[in-house]
Amino acid sequence: MKSFFRKDILEMSGYVPGEQPKEKGIVKLNTNENPFPPSRKIKKYLSTLDIGILRLYPNPESCELRKIIADKFAVKESNVIVGNGSDDILNMIVRCCTDKKKTMAYFDPSYSLYPVLAEIQGTECVKISLEKDFSIPTEIPRKGLDSSLFMITRPNAPTSNSFPKKRIREICSKSKGIVLVDEAYADFAEDDCIDLLGKYKNLVICRTLSKSYSLAGIRLGFAIASEEIISQMMKVKDSYNVNRISQEIAKIAILDNENFERNINLIKSNRKFLIDSLRKKGFKVIDSQTNFVFAAPPGKSGKNAKETYLHLKKNRVLVRYFPGKTTGKYLRITVGTKLELDKLISLI
Amino acid sequence: MKSFFRKDILEMSGYVPGEQPKEKGIVKLNTNENPFPPSRKIKKYLSTLDIGILRLYPNPESCELRKIIADKFAVKESNVIVGNGSDDILNMIVRCCTDKKKTMAYFDPSYSLYPVLAEIQGTECVKISLEKDFSIPTEIPRKGLDSSLFMITRPNAPTSNSFPKKRIREICSKSKGIVLVDEAYADFAEDDCIDLLGKYKNLVICRTLSKSYSLAGIRLGFAIASEEIISQMMKVKDSYNVNRISQEIAKIAILDNENFERNINLIKSNRKFLIDSLRKKGFKVIDSQTNFVFAAPPGKSGKNAKETYLHLKKNRVLVRYFPGKTTGKYLRITVGTKLELDKLISLI
Repeated sequence: MKSFFRKDILEMSGYVPGEQPKEKGIVKLNTNENPFPPSRKIKKYLSTLDIGILRLYPNPESCELRKIIADKFAVKESNVIVGNGSDDILNMIVRCCTDKKKTMAYFDPSYSLYPVLAEIQGTECVKISLEKDFSIPTEIPRKGLDSSLFMITRPNAPTSNSFPKKRIREICSKSKGIVLVDEAYADFAEDDCIDLLGKYKNLVICRTLSKSYSLAGIRLGFAIASEEIISQMMKVKDSYNVNRISQEIAKIAILDNENFERNINLIKSNRKFLIDSLRKKGFKVIDSQTNFVFAAPPGKSGKNAKETYLHLKKNRVLVRYFPGKTTGKYLRITVGTKLELDKLISLI
Repeated sequence: MKSFFRKDILEMSGYVPGEQPKEKGIVKLNTNENPFPPSRKIKKYLSTLDIGILRLYPNPESCELRKIIADKFAVKESNVIVGNGSDDILNMIVRCCTDKKKTMAYFDPSYSLYPVLAEIQGTECVKISLEKDFSIPTEIPRKGLDSSLFMITRPNAPTSNSFPKKRIREICSKSKGIVLVDEAYADFAEDDCIDLLGKYKNLVICRTLSKSYSLAGIRLGFAIASEEIISQMMKVKDSYNVNRISQEIAKIAILDNENFERNINLIKSNRKFLIDSLRKKGFKVIDSQTNFVFAAPPGKSGKNAKETYLHLKKNRVLVRYFPGKTTGKYLRITVGTKLELDKLISLI
């Protein structure tokens, strides 16, 4: 039996996404979903949709959607590629740039999917530990900068902090390969790296509608980069990677700036409330630039984090706990509605 | 610049999907879409959908949908995997089984995506030419049977014929690797290979809702195989590969057997009309087991096929023309509505 599959695949264990409980009435603060609804204009689109068009393939290159994204970021359509979630984008760049003879660098802790994508591709990882305060180390190992691909989550997950833009510039200019800045949470942050795109020809910026646009359910991510990079990514993308309905919903959502900004502001305000409340309870909370917080319960041992996680779970409040020497001291808690956060705080 | 990417990627040209014209009023018989609408029950689902749930990630393993598919084919949920179109399924199996040191076999002509997927993976292809009548050669080269993966489209595209089931059995039992039978068009055929699943532990059967369920726009494909095979494919699948709306629409469509059978019967009847009409015009038409026909205009030279293609295109009727020594003599024409086929025939 074993001989049917590649050894790499047989030996790997696969990515484990956050729990998606089937039960109702759970306060779900474990997968960084936006607690507020997406643009109401989507409702009108779906209720008047002629389902006859579903028999036709979608536009393979998502042209209209890419034009809307390009306009928003003041780039050209040829600088944009769209994916079935930003995970699809990350997978494309891994397949474009890496193989068994190359390496892929990333910081630890950051998005736990990166090493899984490298494993599937059979690529060696260069894992660079962040400092104790989750900042980028002063000296970035040469092996990281020599990698064919360097993945950076900014702001970072699960730690919620951002990195100085100066350090991103430094990595772009010193790297021999592509630098992918994963800006899944950038809409909740003080700044982003879009303005660096013109300056570094090895830079790819990745975004998603899952968090800031409340659309994790439709799977829509995109990347912005030079035409040269996008044209290579286009070759490895699945021919019809984004379905008809998701293309349309994404167009509507991106054009509804009012709903977008309202939700972002609500989350920022709830984030402040959550951080303040946790700190009052003695938690160590990292200054968050995202729609979640990374918070360590009082006491030095990692035991407290796991115990708090289990206590909350027993009381139908899900947060995310990542075992491990550093991350095991903390809980990652999504910024929910005021009501959800009240319940969380009352349980702690 | 070039050094950012893998050599394989730089050198390849990418898959070219059939034209998706933006203009309206085109008779589109070029990408094997179903001319009849999908289940009307989808309309009700979309118009009453609470868009608030789109903020949540979909079920990562499409559990409910897989249960419905499993029930339909009398297998277990653990025998089924769901993809973002069947291209996603094909990509998963290529990534599971092949790499630079392995080979992937396929018949020529068949689905033109196979060698592209192998190219992206950096895998050597073993291309096995079909006979002049598009049947499987009596002797299958040892290198094909020794491959880690053998891709078979049954019924075949773009040739529209099927292969004797005995030959599939022979390939399964003699192959050292996985045999994937791509049954994208099986719902239009006299038989399928589902009953072989229990007999060959290296068999994977791939299906799609794009053709027989009139749902190319939602991107939904699936595979049925042993638990051992499915569990390896699950590791390389994108964590949330099928969005919420497509999962729901697929569930509704598969359960609406009445609409499904009505459409299949209509297409079979229109297919007979199309074949008869083309033969009356002197075309050589392969006996079709699919929702398209493969037809060579009268005259020995390949010129006629290309000229007919261009003539039809000028008159706003799109069919598919594949240049090449064998395929260049034929046109691939999707079975459309009676009205569409009347227009096509009147132009020939």
